[in-house]
Amino acid sequence: MSDPLLRHRAEALFARLQDEVCARLEELDGAARFGRDEWRRPGGGGGTTRVLADGAVFEKGACNVSTVWGPAPPALVEHLGVAAGEFFATGISMIFHPRNPHAPTMHANLRYFECDGGAAWFGGGQDLTPYYLYADDVRAFHRNLADCCARHEVADYPAWKAWCDRYFHLPCRGEARGVGGIFYDHVRELEPMLAFSEDFGEHLLAAYAPIVARRRETPTTPAQERWHLLRRGRYVEFNLLYDRGTRFGLQTGGRTESILVSLPPRVRWDYLAEPAAGTPERELLDLLRGPPRDWL
Amino acid sequence: MSDPLLRHRAEALFARLQDEVCARLEELDGAARFGRDEWRRPGGGGGTTRVLADGAVFEKGACNVSTVWGPAPPALVEHLGVAAGEFFATGISMIFHPRNPHAPTMHANLRYFECDGGAAWFGGGQDLTPYYLYADDVRAFHRNLADCCARHEVADYPAWKAWCDRYFHLPCRGEARGVGGIFYDHVRELEPMLAFSEDFGEHLLAAYAPIVARRRETPTTPAQERWHLLRRGRYVEFNLLYDRGTRFGLQTGGRTESILVSLPPRVRWDYLAEPAAGTPERELLDLLRGPPRDWL
Repeated sequence: MSDPLLRHRAEALFARLQDEVCARLEELDGAARFGRDEWRRPGGGGGTTRVLADGAVFEKGACNVSTVWGPAPPALVEHLGVAAGEFFATGISMIFHPRNPHAPTMHANLRYFECDGGAAWFGGGQDLTPYYLYADDVRAFHRNLADCCARHEVADYPAWKAWCDRYFHLPCRGEARGVGGIFYDHVRELEPMLAFSEDFGEHLLAAYAPIVARRRETPTTPAQERWHLLRRGRYVEFNLLYDRGTRFGLQTGGRTESILVSLPPRVRWDYLAEPAAGTPERELLDLLRGPPRDWL
Repeated sequence: MSDPLLRHRAEALFARLQDEVCARLEELDGAARFGRDEWRRPGGGGGTTRVLADGAVFEKGACNVSTVWGPAPPALVEHLGVAAGEFFATGISMIFHPRNPHAPTMHANLRYFECDGGAAWFGGGQDLTPYYLYADDVRAFHRNLADCCARHEVADYPAWKAWCDRYFHLPCRGEARGVGGIFYDHVRELEPMLAFSEDFGEHLLAAYAPIVARRRETPTTPAQERWHLLRRGRYVEFNLLYDRGTRFGLQTGGRTESILVSLPPRVRWDYLAEPAAGTPERELLDLLRGPPRDWL
């Protein structure tokens, strides 16, 4: 028998995490501050969108929470294969686009969902998208996730790492979006997952913040900057062509500005921009086009 | 009884139009030249992708032809509701992104399709996406299309204009992509449509080239440049989220670089970038968010 207050405990956790993540990111940036926009959903619920723009370290960052409920929209029923009826969903979603091409983009999401008939589950994940490969950074990022999973019997780093590799993949390019992380969904052990979500949420930045601090001042050439913007184009392609959360949010009448705030601020598309052999750009691309790597 | 050589006549027409359009655009640009890439499709057929980049007038432009055939991929069968079996498709597609924000983006497409059982049809269209509204330009663009349609009994400017307005619409933004044009599909009067396609193809640039020539030197501020890149973001959103041709092409194993060459070269996304009341940017946005306008 699950705790009828669990939805409120999850919502409160995500609200607290939003405050903590934004405070930590502002500290890391040192210049820009997050704005705050509250919005209401006509069908029930709403959210708080927090965006930082034109910072010293982060060109754009967003950390959003939303808690929505009401009759399940047809797209939701079809998407999840759940019974029509009432639903409840609460979640936190964040994405940070550093200015320096040597500092990777990071995305994370934690969510809790309930629908009619008593079904309820947690989902979420975190993944890293570098523009230049620093293997130590990637190892530290995965190590942090594996350590967090190891503290919780319900969490399965190898399975969730593989799920992440499958999910963040662009079939049209034959490329991974980045170097992965973890992805999980429909995990129904609610109390253990709430405890995991708290631990995971509190350690989301434990590996990422030091990576950004290490790379933020790396000298950068115009060619590297151009590569950065081209690779950001792949991020846009993934989010608009393939990401189920984005498409689902737009189809169910989510707040478009809050959903598409994930898109990078400046982006390029050039025709046939393949990097030359032997370059760091080629090294990254070969990695993204190859089989997923074990980073531990 | 349709001409068994019609597919070849359509293919030859599109190849000739590609040469003519590229020559005219190079003349208009005065600096850059189109490249030429031939590609083969493993399942049958291939195409010629012609791209111009970093021109004096056009920041990016592409004019592609492809002719493909073979067993209909499952996505095609589902997409078109046709019988599984052999298919044949030939088409020309073009998109031009001028550098100056006062010059509009133009897209056009003409295609011919056959499938097992003898069904065959033409589709196509042309539409204009301005970043600043010059009503005379829009009127000239629509007048050129209406005049072309008036020369052919098979063509129906009012119906095809309305179809274009419905098609190039972003539900997530509640905005039209631009100021429309014409869109038509599944038109089965083959000989009349081949004649229309020839006339339409030969007059595609009759209104657009003079518009670009008029606007190419318009003085531009950094704020106008930023608006240009933001609106190009909407173009990306439409093509990746909604455009059936793009999604269908990627799903059926089309050449990704040829399909996504439609995307603008430089793009921005800013959170909540709403223009102020009384500005030209607001005027355009109000137009795009309002009901379609009769431009004749």
